[in-house]
Amino acid sequence: MNPSFGRRPPRTETPRLSTRGAAKPTTKMDISSLTPTLNHFLGQSAYCELGAFETLARAVFTAPDLAAKEGLSAAAGRALSKHHGLVAEIRRREADPATEMAPFAPALDAFRAKTHGADWHELLLSCYLTGGLLDDFFIRLSDGLPRDVGPRIAQLLGDDAGTEVLVRELQTAIASQPALGSRLAMWGRRLVGDTLLVARSAMPASEADAFTELRIEPVFTDLIAAHTRRMDGLGLTA
Amino acid sequence: MNPSFGRRPPRTETPRLSTRGAAKPTTKMDISSLTPTLNHFLGQSAYCELGAFETLARAVFTAPDLAAKEGLSAAAGRALSKHHGLVAEIRRREADPATEMAPFAPALDAFRAKTHGADWHELLLSCYLTGGLLDDFFIRLSDGLPRDVGPRIAQLLGDDAGTEVLVRELQTAIASQPALGSRLAMWGRRLVGDTLLVARSAMPASEADAFTELRIEPVFTDLIAAHTRRMDGLGLTA
Repeated sequence: MNPSFGRRPPRTETPRLSTRGAAKPTTKMDISSLTPTLNHFLGQSAYCELGAFETLARAVFTAPDLAAKEGLSAAAGRALSKHHGLVAEIRRREADPATEMAPFAPALDAFRAKTHGADWHELLLSCYLTGGLLDDFFIRLSDGLPRDVGPRIAQLLGDDAGTEVLVRELQTAIASQPALGSRLAMWGRRLVGDTLLVARSAMPASEADAFTELRIEPVFTDLIAAHTRRMDGLGLTA
Repeated sequence: MNPSFGRRPPRTETPRLSTRGAAKPTTKMDISSLTPTLNHFLGQSAYCELGAFETLARAVFTAPDLAAKEGLSAAAGRALSKHHGLVAEIRRREADPATEMAPFAPALDAFRAKTHGADWHELLLSCYLTGGLLDDFFIRLSDGLPRDVGPRIAQLLGDDAGTEVLVRELQTAIASQPALGSRLAMWGRRLVGDTLLVARSAMPASEADAFTELRIEPVFTDLIAAHTRRMDGLGLTA
């Protein structure tokens, strides 16, 4: 776990209005008690989307043809819109986006630097897998945010328009080069480990006791299941 | 002039509906006869905005602090929106964006590669000056497009929200380092030459006779005047 995620000073927060964890007849694990403060959540997820944008923009620059470049530019625009949507939420609270994002920059920058991969296809797989997993994770975590903001953020982050181009480019490349498939499968397994560490570090460090781990586990099981579906969709063994 | 701009095959075009050049009591030079075909215009301006986006995204990656990064990401998003707006116009005509942009890629890629500059501040000045001049130019050229599309494109390209961050960062840096000012002034003079060449090459190559040059000249005088105002605003001698 990167220590920079624990360094954030405690903040006061608006009271939770939601009681749906108790009211809804669902087997879904309630992680609202694991959700960090709203400003912590917004700063971290906003910087995370900015990083997703940077990785996608890198894929735009290095795209081998104009059709891919054009499709990826739409995906990059989507990540940037999510970033700006989260920044707007920060501003709505009269907080400063740069200040809110700063505590998360070192760990997330280090994470992004590790996910560039050896070539354009590894980079695309990173965009697809890390973007998908972290969006899923923050959506799940947003369940524990105040009711006047959580659902809006879940909707913002749930927009996965633009990922089709990633899937299409990867499927085409894998179909035409069998060796690429096994290399990408290995890369995907490495990525999921690093990405889950980022997700884990988004939860308050002080909560890391045995009881907490017990509640976190099902969330991570779900995240890994969704990751496996993404790998399967590309014909890769997770 | 880059030869790739002349290689485009002639295209049929919807008839011009606009006759405002004759009707308006204006001293503004009518360049509608110099405007390329609609598809030519859209392909070139769309690729131009994608290049502007890439240059801005590069400035986002290398920003020295989070506040600058955040501000520049909004400017990059604006360039990307212009690109996507132009791509939507191409699609509306049931044409393929990659095909329409392809003829302009080599010359514009070479232009972009020359405008990265030696450091972050030169890169910012490139974003500001080349983006401003080329937007101005395509807006002017859109005057000669069919009336059902020209004004919409002028409005799309005229949105210069997001450039304040470029001006602010440059003004602050120039104020604190006098030597930077004279280096950037020199860089700005070099940029304007290269950018005007790109603009000139956007006009049909076959029109390059003495009479055409006479009609083009006032347009370029206006573009240079706007460029000089941008330089002045930064405290740089154009």
